[in-house]
Amino acid sequence: MSFKDATLIEVDSAVHEAHIAFLSYKNFSGKKRAEFLRAIADEIEALGDELVKTAMSETALPEARIIGERGRTTGHCRMFADYIQEGSWVEARVDTALPDRAPAPKPDIRKKMTALGPVVVFGAANFPLAYSTAGGDTASALAAGCPVIVKAHPAHAKTSELVAGAILKAMSKTGMPKGVFQHLHGAGFEVGQALVKHPNTKAVGFTGSFAGGKALFDLANQRPVPIPVFAEMSSINPIVLLPNSLKKNFESTASMLAASMVLGVGQFCTNPGLILAVEDDGLNQFIKHLSGALSKSLPAEMLHPGIANNYVKRMAEALSQKGVKLEVQSEAESKVGDKNQGRPTLASAPASEFLKNPALAEEVFGPFSLIIRCKDMGELNSVVSHLHGQLTATIIGDEEEIAKASNITNTLIDRAGRLIINGVPTGVEVCPSQNHGGPFPATTDSRFTAVGTDAIKRFARPVSFQNFPDSLLPDELKNKNPLGIWRIVNGEMTQKGW
Amino acid sequence: MSFKDATLIEVDSAVHEAHIAFLSYKNFSGKKRAEFLRAIADEIEALGDELVKTAMSETALPEARIIGERGRTTGHCRMFADYIQEGSWVEARVDTALPDRAPAPKPDIRKKMTALGPVVVFGAANFPLAYSTAGGDTASALAAGCPVIVKAHPAHAKTSELVAGAILKAMSKTGMPKGVFQHLHGAGFEVGQALVKHPNTKAVGFTGSFAGGKALFDLANQRPVPIPVFAEMSSINPIVLLPNSLKKNFESTASMLAASMVLGVGQFCTNPGLILAVEDDGLNQFIKHLSGALSKSLPAEMLHPGIANNYVKRMAEALSQKGVKLEVQSEAESKVGDKNQGRPTLASAPASEFLKNPALAEEVFGPFSLIIRCKDMGELNSVVSHLHGQLTATIIGDEEEIAKASNITNTLIDRAGRLIINGVPTGVEVCPSQNHGGPFPATTDSRFTAVGTDAIKRFARPVSFQNFPDSLLPDELKNKNPLGIWRIVNGEMTQKGW
Repeated sequence: MSFKDATLIEVDSAVHEAHIAFLSYKNFSGKKRAEFLRAIADEIEALGDELVKTAMSETALPEARIIGERGRTTGHCRMFADYIQEGSWVEARVDTALPDRAPAPKPDIRKKMTALGPVVVFGAANFPLAYSTAGGDTASALAAGCPVIVKAHPAHAKTSELVAGAILKAMSKTGMPKGVFQHLHGAGFEVGQALVKHPNTKAVGFTGSFAGGKALFDLANQRPVPIPVFAEMSSINPIVLLPNSLKKNFESTASMLAASMVLGVGQFCTNPGLILAVEDDGLNQFIKHLSGALSKSLPAEMLHPGIANNYVKRMAEALSQKGVKLEVQSEAESKVGDKNQGRPTLASAPASEFLKNPALAEEVFGPFSLIIRCKDMGELNSVVSHLHGQLTATIIGDEEEIAKASNITNTLIDRAGRLIINGVPTGVEVCPSQNHGGPFPATTDSRFTAVGTDAIKRFARPVSFQNFPDSLLPDELKNKNPLGIWRIVNGEMTQKGW
Repeated sequence: MSFKDATLIEVDSAVHEAHIAFLSYKNFSGKKRAEFLRAIADEIEALGDELVKTAMSETALPEARIIGERGRTTGHCRMFADYIQEGSWVEARVDTALPDRAPAPKPDIRKKMTALGPVVVFGAANFPLAYSTAGGDTASALAAGCPVIVKAHPAHAKTSELVAGAILKAMSKTGMPKGVFQHLHGAGFEVGQALVKHPNTKAVGFTGSFAGGKALFDLANQRPVPIPVFAEMSSINPIVLLPNSLKKNFESTASMLAASMVLGVGQFCTNPGLILAVEDDGLNQFIKHLSGALSKSLPAEMLHPGIANNYVKRMAEALSQKGVKLEVQSEAESKVGDKNQGRPTLASAPASEFLKNPALAEEVFGPFSLIIRCKDMGELNSVVSHLHGQLTATIIGDEEEIAKASNITNTLIDRAGRLIINGVPTGVEVCPSQNHGGPFPATTDSRFTAVGTDAIKRFARPVSFQNFPDSLLPDELKNKNPLGIWRIVNGEMTQKGW
């Protein structure tokens, strides 16, 4: 089944409709928008098996994964519903007037976050549900009060169409204005580019390749009126193995990392692509056990031919670099034949080469990891200082050893959005404390997370109201605090009104 | 007295030093950074009369204004000191582990804001103290934990040098590392460009012309690793006069706006440059009274010859547009002679011309305002919808009338950072509820304010800590909550620890 690309006229009319919808939707109460988000979750569940089977057939991902991802998708819709119904996310600040202040009276000023405007969301290849049509970008933008136009990912266009249908049903059941959510197809670049360039588009969400994300970022900044682009792009998620711990735990560390490396055929943005350690017997034992685990690990079908071909190509490039040694490649026979196969692969290189050759820091999207052998902790430190921006950075070691290597943690904080101790980067918990983001090139804006409740902040901006009579203020800022939200009133955090 | 421009080698070494300072300064406690900010305020005050006289001679601004601005500058240093000493600004979120959760255990994750890195701040011509060397950008960046390099504005280089000396004294008195604050001169573009392009620079603060701000924004986005630019640029701060109220209050409204128009020779970014009203007798009376007030208003010396020449040129351009009528130009003799004179001027144009000609929406920096005569409320609405992004938008009318014109307020919220009812946009209160910012071209990033406590957010990004032992967590995230800050713990706002 194939879908017709939107025409440029359809793009224009979609963004225009989104703008019209925005003028009312942004003012809907948190409660009313929450109903809509909960209805989306219900309607996605109501799609039942058809959605699971369609997504499986379009992405080659297994049933358990798709069911899990559906749970995450409905979960974040309901999480944002609860969050906006509670309402404190608007960061209300109230400063009351001091008419007698000298030399000048202080006016009454109040501030809250308000929606940016229509948001364009690009479906992501590697998450047909959780980062696509009703993914985190869509759910957080709708929660903030922004209409959304989704550009379906062509690799799972039918899945996208099904979810879009569920959202449209939810819109109609909860009385949302036409244009609050729209869904367009576009196999080439034209539709996406036209959406990003449209004057009524106010922000963009994207998860995918560096080339794709950077192109959208540049396009958005070249507009007469630039707009923010939240592109999550490229991360090799370094793992630092500290020597004392590795000596003791090489076997368990190897098993833990092997599982993380091959999870979802390595097609997670948090896949551990780089392992840093000091060259010693512990590292040799670790490599031996990790190689053992990977050699038995089954190759599996990747998301689509483009990604599979790219994996083979990028891996070959990495392996051809000076000093890079292939440690192991899975020799297991795939159960599903050769189609779009991603074969788990481990390589290593000396730190001296990594420090000289930027190609070794580039992402190979798939089940590939590169071990960097460092002469000593000083060289490991240099490697850490050379890292680009990352979504995550992981340190494996005992408490004392990590405390001693505080300069490594201190540097990693400036390189990554999330630091993990004695765990793996794959598995992104959806919760208020999550930061799924990081310095460039991990994302185009390190100041925001794409996952968790704070993802809503991407699609809002502050507005102050000076000298407004109470009746004309938004509910969040009225004297009585009718919504009972947390506010900073004259410098104090409180839920009280008066 | 003139200062030598920094060489490119000096720029490189300054940013390198800032980076080294960052590695320790970012980890200083809020209390320690607060001591530094308070010492800056003390040392600026200790400069006494010399600072006031120097600033007066370099900017032609009167003594009362400079003294007021000094108070605002020391005031925001102390405000940020209190804010970071209290500490809740880091937006701490704590989600504790659920090891028994099915299907997968929930890890312990905690999040807080952390400093971005070295920040480059450009001194602003129109605020030699409050938006320059120890201005809001510098104070908020230092508060966030970012070293600052100030590029002095050449029009008040000596004032800048004096304030820089005060900051360096404060650094030494409070034991700050070398490189936390640095001060460079550069009369041309080279120094500023080199600072923005340096790989170790992580953000930029700028207040000035659209051309200057946009050039820095483009430069920063063209870097291999783009960085955020907070440029406050161009705003004409529309005033909407509603007809019922105007009919009754044309006289008081005219006096109030006349004072706001000529305040500081119109050299405020919040100067009311555009007045929108329905053509009727109330408007005619208003124009008559406003013209009367302006004709008697004294021309005064502007900040520097560049700004004065630009005012004359841009005003002439505006007056030469089709449909624009000169209403009045001050005929009063200046007391200070002709040097760099800014002469208060009022013009008007029909809405039909404004809607056709983008030139009429361009800023004329100085004491110039353009009245747009609208046929009716429908046309006034169209004009409002045509506005670019603004720092402020003001509505003057009675409560009932404003409530009826809710579509105007609804549109203005999407055009401006701050809405004012029955007041003037000049006068920017420094407080938590202030939003001094707005959609492009008012600023390059509408999601942040340049004034008030939330200005600190521009220079920080979130970082999550997963599975960290308590001893390795930053104080803000430790179980016991030793700083007693407000945190969201498992979804609940609380100051409690455990």
